[in-house]
Amino acid sequence: MSTAGLRAQFPIFAAQQGTPFHYLDNAATGQICRAAAEALWHFETRARANVKRGVYRLADEATTAFQKARQEVAAYIGASDPDEVIFTSGCTLAINTAAHALALRLRPGDEILISELEHHSNIVPWQMAAARTGARVRAIPVTPEGRLACDRLDDLVTGRTRIIAVTHASNVTGAVTDVGALRDAADAVGALLLLDGAQRAAHGPLDVQTLGCDLYAFSAHKMFGPTGAGALWVRKDLLLDLPPFLGGGEMIRRVEIERSTYAPPPHRFEAGTPPIGPVIGMGAAAAWLATLDWAALGRQEIELTARTLEGLQSLDGVRIVGPVGTQARIGVVSFAVEGIHPHDVCQMLDEFGLALRGGHHCAQPLMDAFDLPATVRASLAPYNDAADVDALIEGLDTVIRRLR
Amino acid sequence: MSTAGLRAQFPIFAAQQGTPFHYLDNAATGQICRAAAEALWHFETRARANVKRGVYRLADEATTAFQKARQEVAAYIGASDPDEVIFTSGCTLAINTAAHALALRLRPGDEILISELEHHSNIVPWQMAAARTGARVRAIPVTPEGRLACDRLDDLVTGRTRIIAVTHASNVTGAVTDVGALRDAADAVGALLLLDGAQRAAHGPLDVQTLGCDLYAFSAHKMFGPTGAGALWVRKDLLLDLPPFLGGGEMIRRVEIERSTYAPPPHRFEAGTPPIGPVIGMGAAAAWLATLDWAALGRQEIELTARTLEGLQSLDGVRIVGPVGTQARIGVVSFAVEGIHPHDVCQMLDEFGLALRGGHHCAQPLMDAFDLPATVRASLAPYNDAADVDALIEGLDTVIRRLR
Repeated sequence: MSTAGLRAQFPIFAAQQGTPFHYLDNAATGQICRAAAEALWHFETRARANVKRGVYRLADEATTAFQKARQEVAAYIGASDPDEVIFTSGCTLAINTAAHALALRLRPGDEILISELEHHSNIVPWQMAAARTGARVRAIPVTPEGRLACDRLDDLVTGRTRIIAVTHASNVTGAVTDVGALRDAADAVGALLLLDGAQRAAHGPLDVQTLGCDLYAFSAHKMFGPTGAGALWVRKDLLLDLPPFLGGGEMIRRVEIERSTYAPPPHRFEAGTPPIGPVIGMGAAAAWLATLDWAALGRQEIELTARTLEGLQSLDGVRIVGPVGTQARIGVVSFAVEGIHPHDVCQMLDEFGLALRGGHHCAQPLMDAFDLPATVRASLAPYNDAADVDALIEGLDTVIRRLR
Repeated sequence: MSTAGLRAQFPIFAAQQGTPFHYLDNAATGQICRAAAEALWHFETRARANVKRGVYRLADEATTAFQKARQEVAAYIGASDPDEVIFTSGCTLAINTAAHALALRLRPGDEILISELEHHSNIVPWQMAAARTGARVRAIPVTPEGRLACDRLDDLVTGRTRIIAVTHASNVTGAVTDVGALRDAADAVGALLLLDGAQRAAHGPLDVQTLGCDLYAFSAHKMFGPTGAGALWVRKDLLLDLPPFLGGGEMIRRVEIERSTYAPPPHRFEAGTPPIGPVIGMGAAAAWLATLDWAALGRQEIELTARTLEGLQSLDGVRIVGPVGTQARIGVVSFAVEGIHPHDVCQMLDEFGLALRGGHHCAQPLMDAFDLPATVRASLAPYNDAADVDALIEGLDTVIRRLR
């Protein structure tokens, strides 16, 4: 599929036609694909009923659609069984669910290893777990190139390390994590490995089993599904052992006033009415993404990333924050412009229809490591093309000339 | 607005035209209103960006739309300040958020008073809170009529009672709670009062300040908004004191690897990307609902409830589970049919296009109190009319004749 053909699968581009629109904030949220939007609309307006408990036609259909989404999402990430997929309201709740369940295994002095490269969603839940249990949060430092310093794993992974929780791909530098090194380090001490896949999930199907992680968290809206849904994948044998996080309907086996017993997974982790429409849309997005030619899209992403990196480096006073090459990275490129605050850069780029984010990107420890208050970030999706990148470089050139 | 005119505001009825469709499962989920569906669609497909942090046009517009939803929902429930409204993924997460925050104030031997009438979503989170803290869960019994036995409050509310958490309207019997009695009992011992408004919120605007509760939880999908959103209202002075539940982006002030400080409410309680589309749809639903003539709709609900109750009582072997009158109730009517399992009743009613729920309705303690495994439940919404009720009574008559 050409980029134009692919772009036609995203309703926003027709809606925004007539005004310049270069959407380069895909790391914050992707645009919804037609398949997801239509599945969401169909459920909400034509076929809505609650799931898991109904005994009439619409309710049966809704439950079937919901379970189909579980299969579609499971297939997209290579889960061995759809029931390893827990639906949540987003990646943040997915990580909180994991952190709560795993915290019950922690003792004072145990260690949770995260990294300086993490999004706050993969830091704060572990701090909360540590505060409850007396465990300690340690962090893998970031290299000057914006990657995990995996050469430090020998020091950082100890006999007290119980959990390693790191991003699969940085939402700031675009660096893709060397999961193999972390898997080996975790195995050496019997630690569990959680990957925050919020960014990676938008860049094509994956195989959690080959990756070798134990838990994988991601959200729908960053992989072109609706807002309001996400998922936590947990390896089956681990999942069977984990206690629930939220209490409510549909996660129980038996409730009495004094005590309750819980249902098997995934239901034990899906308390209350799930975000049914968003989940069905997430399934449709996963199924549609799975049909794309990811070899070609990967080449396109590398080309556009290279074009972005080269363009930025051709400008006076622009510093890339992250890898300057295209190896082991996604198309997320952060940069600083000497003497101009990232917010100002983004506000001026907005005049040219350029949608970029300027801020700490919910990654303050990383900003601290680079001694920056914020960066400007351009993040690519399959619907972006060279015109988007060129508009960015030209716009930025104008901004720099104007303010210098 | 006539019922036909009102029905035209719900897209499902046009979609289901041509087949008999009597939707009487509104206590499980209401149908989405056009205003909510269109707001959701507009955001997802024409104007999508992440909220609270963007510095370009679309992101500004999304943030404005999100904040407008907070104002609309706050106005619908009579909050004194939009910032008292915390958006969640649903009523279950709202109650879990409350239970987690309030649990931090509990000591061993403290008491949480719930009732036998509660939905599991207002039981299990308190059991979890009790298990963590050594507090004890006690329950107000249910009367034979399916109401809270408020004459037992003198015995049940003690100097150890810290929290009273009860439903505002039962999802099984339809009984509306005498909030004043509970408020007085809570005040007498300095306890906090939480109301589970999941059912009540669909039956017109309310005034949490006059009600006198401290916390109010409800969901979007049961008040004709999208699936995937809900809200927790907390009285401002209490809210300012409550700690966060979920950790993640946007709920922090400052994150370092070792520690984090948190943002003021409501943001402290809204970790990560919120369910933006569902929340915007929830706001649109609240704003549209606020325009309706609730005096007329209230009369209509009483008439249809009376028609349902009378029709059911005219049938052989049908027993109402709940009040047999229309005072202090919503249009939720449960019943048992002698000798026929509720699941079988519902499956056969489905043949006539009747959508009703048969089961324990996530209220097993109530089923235990009535010594029933399950009930059949008919639940009304403003779009229901006499034809729906008559179809139910006729269908049920046929089912009973067939199986006797």
